[in-house]
Amino acid sequence: MSRRTPPLSAYFKKRQALVNRALERVLPKADAYPNVIHEAMRYGVLGEGKRVRPILALAACEAVGGALEEALPAGCAIELVHAYSLVHDDLPAMDDDDFRRGRPSCHKQFGEAIGILAGDALFTLSFQVISRQRSHPARWLQINQELAQAAGTFGMIGGQVADLQGPEAAAKTSTLEYILEHKTGALIAAAVRMGALAGGATPKQLAKLTRYGECVGLVFQLVDDLLDRDGVVKVWGELVTRQRAENLTAQAKAALASFGSKAQPLRDIADFLNSREH
Amino acid sequence: MSRRTPPLSAYFKKRQALVNRALERVLPKADAYPNVIHEAMRYGVLGEGKRVRPILALAACEAVGGALEEALPAGCAIELVHAYSLVHDDLPAMDDDDFRRGRPSCHKQFGEAIGILAGDALFTLSFQVISRQRSHPARWLQINQELAQAAGTFGMIGGQVADLQGPEAAAKTSTLEYILEHKTGALIAAAVRMGALAGGATPKQLAKLTRYGECVGLVFQLVDDLLDRDGVVKVWGELVTRQRAENLTAQAKAALASFGSKAQPLRDIADFLNSREH
Repeated sequence: MSRRTPPLSAYFKKRQALVNRALERVLPKADAYPNVIHEAMRYGVLGEGKRVRPILALAACEAVGGALEEALPAGCAIELVHAYSLVHDDLPAMDDDDFRRGRPSCHKQFGEAIGILAGDALFTLSFQVISRQRSHPARWLQINQELAQAAGTFGMIGGQVADLQGPEAAAKTSTLEYILEHKTGALIAAAVRMGALAGGATPKQLAKLTRYGECVGLVFQLVDDLLDRDGVVKVWGELVTRQRAENLTAQAKAALASFGSKAQPLRDIADFLNSREH
Repeated sequence: MSRRTPPLSAYFKKRQALVNRALERVLPKADAYPNVIHEAMRYGVLGEGKRVRPILALAACEAVGGALEEALPAGCAIELVHAYSLVHDDLPAMDDDDFRRGRPSCHKQFGEAIGILAGDALFTLSFQVISRQRSHPARWLQINQELAQAAGTFGMIGGQVADLQGPEAAAKTSTLEYILEHKTGALIAAAVRMGALAGGATPKQLAKLTRYGECVGLVFQLVDDLLDRDGVVKVWGELVTRQRAENLTAQAKAALASFGSKAQPLRDIADFLNSREH
């Protein structure tokens, strides 16, 4: 039940800056024709954003002994997918949100047609970033698959569809648990796996980090539900939900036991995600 | 100027059936949870559809000596991207089309939110299909890149954005030519390249087939404009547009000179695309 101060704000800031520079490089320039789509893409990605997913990918890469830079394309790709999902989620036919991170949402700023296409374009770019990597083709093809699976109808899109199915379905515990596991969890677990694969993880390392990723993915959504007093909190209550987040955080860290000090950032991130207050 | 009867209807029908069976296999079953998204995906892809892009991919694969089956995943992937682009194009904020191929468009049938997500899901699936291929990872990673590039803002999406820029921009010859080259041409040229790569094309073969693909991609859009009395026809006139389509078809076939009888289907398809009447 404790709400600790995040212990790694300096680490996070440094990694955020690194990711932001990498995103800046992979995004087409705003003055490239047709300008408006590139402006909208940059608007949807740059600016605020915790960069949790890419930071997890970088830390997973380092945990298996890889160099930070090896996971940067995977980190950018997963952040582009996250940004695309937010741009499409905000559309009038979906959540109909006029604001995102304190400013007009992408479709409010650029119109609905460009909103749809900017989301599509960010998603496309994520696969371009991955397929530009040529040094370990089998590895990057697997990373490509991880991303596509996690973003698809048995991952993120499946969670979004379940979330759209009206109040009757949403009151069912089974629907809420499905959303919990799929809507955000799938992409967060994929971020960890993609980073580990980029760093050349062995199958054993990958299995342990998968467990870690699944646990922190659930914690992320549980804490979202706690902060919004929504989702599973409505059926489990605040106390049980908080307890489950604590347990899952402990399980996530337990999965890292054999990694030693190289996995310390992953442990700290797990604590941070469990204790975050926004 | 001649309008020949398509000489290859039996060939087309056989290939269409092959592609349709492959698409049926790669699409999730309609009763997989959450059902509605899988129903919408199948609705957006199965049924009518000329399957021009996959048929081009298969023929390009055979032209370089590959086996038909080697290009089927690439053919499916490109048709899924084509279907996603139609589903999103029909949305109210885009072309606002209530009908597609004689029945309600995807968002009219399933609602706008599912229409957006079904397009997203079809696009995601195309990358899943590609990354499942494990026998030649470098080759499939390049195929992945071809697809993502052709679908992106310097390809198909760029063409769509240019097409949205209102009557003033659309009256400019430069805009019309940009749309001509990007909106449909990029994906058709990519279909040819992806099929050739799947069949193990040499760089020399790939260069020639790229020329072929670019030419037939332009022909496809020119004939669209001729049939709709729209696009470049409005600035070039019908006669000049028809003449350009004829010239490009001749150039496409000339690029195949060194391929012999293995490229006969590609020559016939070029004639078919030039003479099609719908």
